[in-house]
Amino acid sequence: MGTYLNINNGEESCPKTTEQAKKMAKHAIAVLLFSTVLFILAPESSSFPFQSVSSRRAPKFLGRFSTSKHRNQRPKQLLRYRYETRYFEQRLDHFSFSELPTFNQRYLISSEHWAGADRLGPIFLYCGNEGDIEWFAANTGFVWEIAPSFGAMVVFPEHRYYGNSMPFGSREEAYKDAASLSYLTAEQALADFAVLITNLKRNLSAEACPVILFGGSYGGMLAAWMRLKYPHIAIGALASSAPILQFEDIVPPETFYNIVSSDFKRESASCFNTIKASWNALISEGQKENGLSQLTRMFRLCRELKNTEELANWLDSAYSFLAMVDYPYPSEFLMPLPGYPIREVCRKIDGCPDGTSILERVFEGVGVYYNYTGEVDCFELDDDPHGMDGWNWQACTEMVMPMSSSPDASMFPAYDFNFSAFQEECWTNFKVNPRPRWITTEFGGKDIMTNLKTFGSNIIFSNGFLDPWSGYSVTQNVSDSIVALNTQEGAHHIDLRAATAQDPNWLVEQRATEIKLIKKWLSDYYQAKGATLRSNVETGDRATSM
Amino acid sequence: MGTYLNINNGEESCPKTTEQAKKMAKHAIAVLLFSTVLFILAPESSSFPFQSVSSRRAPKFLGRFSTSKHRNQRPKQLLRYRYETRYFEQRLDHFSFSELPTFNQRYLISSEHWAGADRLGPIFLYCGNEGDIEWFAANTGFVWEIAPSFGAMVVFPEHRYYGNSMPFGSREEAYKDAASLSYLTAEQALADFAVLITNLKRNLSAEACPVILFGGSYGGMLAAWMRLKYPHIAIGALASSAPILQFEDIVPPETFYNIVSSDFKRESASCFNTIKASWNALISEGQKENGLSQLTRMFRLCRELKNTEELANWLDSAYSFLAMVDYPYPSEFLMPLPGYPIREVCRKIDGCPDGTSILERVFEGVGVYYNYTGEVDCFELDDDPHGMDGWNWQACTEMVMPMSSSPDASMFPAYDFNFSAFQEECWTNFKVNPRPRWITTEFGGKDIMTNLKTFGSNIIFSNGFLDPWSGYSVTQNVSDSIVALNTQEGAHHIDLRAATAQDPNWLVEQRATEIKLIKKWLSDYYQAKGATLRSNVETGDRATSM
Repeated sequence: MGTYLNINNGEESCPKTTEQAKKMAKHAIAVLLFSTVLFILAPESSSFPFQSVSSRRAPKFLGRFSTSKHRNQRPKQLLRYRYETRYFEQRLDHFSFSELPTFNQRYLISSEHWAGADRLGPIFLYCGNEGDIEWFAANTGFVWEIAPSFGAMVVFPEHRYYGNSMPFGSREEAYKDAASLSYLTAEQALADFAVLITNLKRNLSAEACPVILFGGSYGGMLAAWMRLKYPHIAIGALASSAPILQFEDIVPPETFYNIVSSDFKRESASCFNTIKASWNALISEGQKENGLSQLTRMFRLCRELKNTEELANWLDSAYSFLAMVDYPYPSEFLMPLPGYPIREVCRKIDGCPDGTSILERVFEGVGVYYNYTGEVDCFELDDDPHGMDGWNWQACTEMVMPMSSSPDASMFPAYDFNFSAFQEECWTNFKVNPRPRWITTEFGGKDIMTNLKTFGSNIIFSNGFLDPWSGYSVTQNVSDSIVALNTQEGAHHIDLRAATAQDPNWLVEQRATEIKLIKKWLSDYYQAKGATLRSNVETGDRATSM
Repeated sequence: MGTYLNINNGEESCPKTTEQAKKMAKHAIAVLLFSTVLFILAPESSSFPFQSVSSRRAPKFLGRFSTSKHRNQRPKQLLRYRYETRYFEQRLDHFSFSELPTFNQRYLISSEHWAGADRLGPIFLYCGNEGDIEWFAANTGFVWEIAPSFGAMVVFPEHRYYGNSMPFGSREEAYKDAASLSYLTAEQALADFAVLITNLKRNLSAEACPVILFGGSYGGMLAAWMRLKYPHIAIGALASSAPILQFEDIVPPETFYNIVSSDFKRESASCFNTIKASWNALISEGQKENGLSQLTRMFRLCRELKNTEELANWLDSAYSFLAMVDYPYPSEFLMPLPGYPIREVCRKIDGCPDGTSILERVFEGVGVYYNYTGEVDCFELDDDPHGMDGWNWQACTEMVMPMSSSPDASMFPAYDFNFSAFQEECWTNFKVNPRPRWITTEFGGKDIMTNLKTFGSNIIFSNGFLDPWSGYSVTQNVSDSIVALNTQEGAHHIDLRAATAQDPNWLVEQRATEIKLIKKWLSDYYQAKGATLRSNVETGDRATSM
């Protein structure tokens, strides 16, 4: 590794970097979309490099975003769409008769283009996930854009315990302790959607109007699960980038980091190698006298670095999120970024003059993620990873999605998911015990090809293979009507985003196929509906004549 | 009505009756299988005959049977089957992370004929319903009898809050109040089955062994719902006499009594007419001076009659249960009875000498039900209808199954289901509010033909059209693999009973078709399984290569 280890003083780093790092930017604290519980753990037999520093890596989630701490205004994309904001009173526990306070679930609704109940106008229901529903609505342009041609109503219900949908009257009360949080589960959220839409339809005399589900990421998991669990409520689901198989041992836990790594390798092998070598370079530098101070300066951190793991996490986050949002055009989903941002990162890493150190190179690279606008003076590391946020709770209860890293195919340090340590951490943070086998018991996932082959219908699993979550989704056609729509070049639920002038053909085609399939579901439904209305009359005759 | 009203002094009733009514029999307090919430209510516009007496009829359920008060020994049929009794620790609330005590669920298990995990031997799982699981196991001979030829393991888990599967350590604690009862729901029961079977399979390395569900009555509803909600856990379900459509307004609420009435009418129109006239005869007699005493003597009651409604309920129960167990051979499911007991009842009613009064005739008739063995000295009326029994709780929470009676086709007094009064009654008894729309939201039911046509597979709805519950079941084929197997002459889940030498051809054929369908489900599964094992290998390759 000596050949790479060429640490300078920061001042001598790759010149372009110093030009860009000018201003402090609050959004450097990334909006962390649906990341996962990731522990850097040192099994006794492992050669884990960070064990001297700390045994754990923080979970990273969107959860914090849900508090709207980092957003004090409505997402600007939403201004394009017209909707009403309403609230619906929900039971806290749908599955027991315990006497509990109800809460108000927020939902956005637009009937502007709805064909109406008489014409059986469809209802497009987005399954709100772990954050403020306005943010998801703003980033799900696809649903808004196709609704008019379908004559569809659009409904975006918020997930309980996020955004403005807080039980017990306030976020503070809802997140007080394990008792108050105990009803934050996927099953309860699905039941919320079911009760809301059933009620909404009844009030509009729209019982016969077909519902189509949409969702991305965790919302995509909810959409797929809802189609499986509530087929009488929704006739089909588009589950985009939905890692429903990331439970227990269904898919190897290394998959996520292998895909992130592959995304970098496909842009540049030397970029991949530089990043792969950087972790040890970081350790070595951190172990030197004044090493942490040197790193603090080199990485232009706003405060003194406490250990190298903090910095490793910060770098890891950038690479992981870059892989998720490796979109072919400039975007601002998580951070303002250029098109194909990984290409840009690697261009920076590879483009430094000879003699530039590994760490200088990676700093130059992650600048694309953390400081593309060039407004950042110094970088804030994420310093409250263990906050009581919603996704942390979900990950510590039922959404136990193991993640490891193996040096075989990954550019990340090696580590193994360790359930005992995870459990301990959850107990410390929430006083709750995870149930790692519950999701597969409740929703399935194991041997999904066999199980869904003769059961279920009308689900699209859409995936982009640049997206590290695609490795945990369904990527093969299961049956005629449970299909996978994969793109080699797509990233995290890109198909759900609003169309842009720069959309590549494969994306235009993917969306066109989705529209075609949804149309088929609807026409099948209308056909079956006609046939059934007749046979119901017959049944009625039989029932009263007996 | 005067022509019928010919009340004598009891001593002068139809002679055979006096011969039979000899001994007091404890089992005259009927084992009330899966009856329903039935309120005799007087809408202002109705000509309801009992309004002067009391506005309500008691709910009648198996619930009380679950306490084993009337059974102090193992059902004798069970001696034929070899099994072990085990207990499994379950969460009280599967759908939240509230800190609650666990409880032990009883289950009966037999691996005697199981082909084993290596050979993918199937597992037959009976969905325990509202009572002691031994009683259901004793009356579900079909499952025991076919298991050997399938090489199947047999598992009979008990439903929570019944039999020996009591939360909070005892029946007394479990049934203390609404708080302790609040986890007695169908969804929790299904999750119990799912967790139990998943765990059992894992412990036996039998994850790939296919599970087939069985259930009768409420157990049949659970079997159908479980196949719909947990298709990854069970590959098919035989739902016998499962009235999954008796919710809200899916099927006319008069259906039950119309079918009971039709069962009597098909045996004898005069029998039907006698019963139909008897209700007013009863009222008139009760209104006379000493009328209640007269009736007490005429009906050989053990205690003085308080009002005529008590007696009407007692008669109604007999007719309803007779319709359910109108089996073609002698049986002892609810009471010891002859084959085609309704025929026998009508023979008694019609066979009395000219001049026998209506009430004497019906007393003679119901003797077939309450005193077929001739051991009864005097009859006990059910005097604790509002006890905190399990089914009463279920009916007052989610299992709101409306029932009415219309004079058009029914031999019963007219009455309408009145939800407000029902709600009030539930509040009085349990301090709980029913959720009448929840079951259709959670499990569907409305427009079931459309909804299941393109979703779901491998469910048999078996029905006997003599059974009054058949009117609320699925009686038409929905799709190739969701089918209705109806018999004109069958009664309440007769197909699940052990084979007898007297089984008529239609029953032998119905069971043969069930066996054929189950074999098809299994062979489809084994075939899909082979195909999928191969494609999983491919998926694995993809996942690790990225």
